[in-house]
Amino acid sequence: MTRTASEALSPADAIRVAVSTVIFTLRRLPGSDAFQVVLPLVRRTRDPHEGQWALPGGWLDATEGLAAAASRTLGETTGLSPSYLEQLYAFGAVDRSPTRVVSIVYWALLRADEITDSTVENVSWFDAASLPSLAFDHNEIVEYALWRLRNKVGYSRIAHGLLADEFTLADLREVYEAILGRRLDPANFRRQVENSGTLIPTDRFRTGSHRPARLYRYNQDVELADRGPLDARD
Amino acid sequence: MTRTASEALSPADAIRVAVSTVIFTLRRLPGSDAFQVVLPLVRRTRDPHEGQWALPGGWLDATEGLAAAASRTLGETTGLSPSYLEQLYAFGAVDRSPTRVVSIVYWALLRADEITDSTVENVSWFDAASLPSLAFDHNEIVEYALWRLRNKVGYSRIAHGLLADEFTLADLREVYEAILGRRLDPANFRRQVENSGTLIPTDRFRTGSHRPARLYRYNQDVELADRGPLDARD
Repeated sequence: MTRTASEALSPADAIRVAVSTVIFTLRRLPGSDAFQVVLPLVRRTRDPHEGQWALPGGWLDATEGLAAAASRTLGETTGLSPSYLEQLYAFGAVDRSPTRVVSIVYWALLRADEITDSTVENVSWFDAASLPSLAFDHNEIVEYALWRLRNKVGYSRIAHGLLADEFTLADLREVYEAILGRRLDPANFRRQVENSGTLIPTDRFRTGSHRPARLYRYNQDVELADRGPLDARD
Repeated sequence: MTRTASEALSPADAIRVAVSTVIFTLRRLPGSDAFQVVLPLVRRTRDPHEGQWALPGGWLDATEGLAAAASRTLGETTGLSPSYLEQLYAFGAVDRSPTRVVSIVYWALLRADEITDSTVENVSWFDAASLPSLAFDHNEIVEYALWRLRNKVGYSRIAHGLLADEFTLADLREVYEAILGRRLDPANFRRQVENSGTLIPTDRFRTGSHRPARLYRYNQDVELADRGPLDARD
């Protein structure tokens, strides 16, 4: 009995694996105290979706792990190199690309000072709340990442990834407001945060145009909820 | 200029995509009130790892979504068909299999009464806390699923997935004890749960060998923390 070509070629061989990354940071709106959540996108220079904006990414190489591929392709396309990428989700709907592609998506939060604002060709930063129509299902991927971000601020110190090591309660509230997309009552916010035990007041104050505001730092003794046993793995 | 064979074959073509599922339920230990977390495993009938136990799963077909593939392969290997599978993680370490395989892992919690205990060839249920050495990196995958389960009980109603619609506080505490792997103080547990607002007391009581215990149900008005906008998607 001979094997036919279709038997020799398992269906799984027609599926390719890609990686993409969603990198969120906060930017102050011009002339305002308010932050907006922004992310870098790359303009596609080939089909499919030539000319449209897409998440940074590329093909998984057979000899590299998933996180390594996400990190490599992010660096190649944008020049960014976050110290830690977290796996977000695997997207694999049959119709998400003209050919069958499963994309493993990673994400990271960066503080504004971690971003070297070198001009990279075909890369631009976009307000996550008002994106153009992106290539493939990338609008849906960003929506999902935003949803996860909003959920996470409730039960972990994720806002820390967007702040300097020391910050005022107003800084922290503005991060939450940018992520949640709504204003929070300052007095309620202060009470909740102080009761949570996750912040340590320092002896330092920020002075400036307003009255001095105490600087806080996160309590490093409290475990982050989301880093698990897979921390350094794929 | 002609393309060489190595240029025509992108490295990504050497990577295959598989799906696996971790299905947790609780069983009472014989002659005890205590629960243990158990999961179904399938004995491998071919290389690699012939004869070893592995998670239910199989290859992703080019024409089906990720969750559909997980559901299909779970049904084919174990006969189980949970109403909802949640994506757990994509495992893609280079050395996890003799060939390069990225496994998208799904998981579900089932109540004991959702499991039809038909005898399926090469399938057996194992105590998650004392597994044998499994095929591939499947011990690591189960460890990760258990870690996620322990984290989730703290901030969502995940224990509900393992209980009947109405239950006593002792039932609920025993579910938490099985998942967390330690005893909880009954009085503290009662106070915390009653303060959480997630339970609604009913007018019914369970009677039996002990004194009557009030039955509770979950407050369906409180959103589950973990079902997101991707609920019905891949």
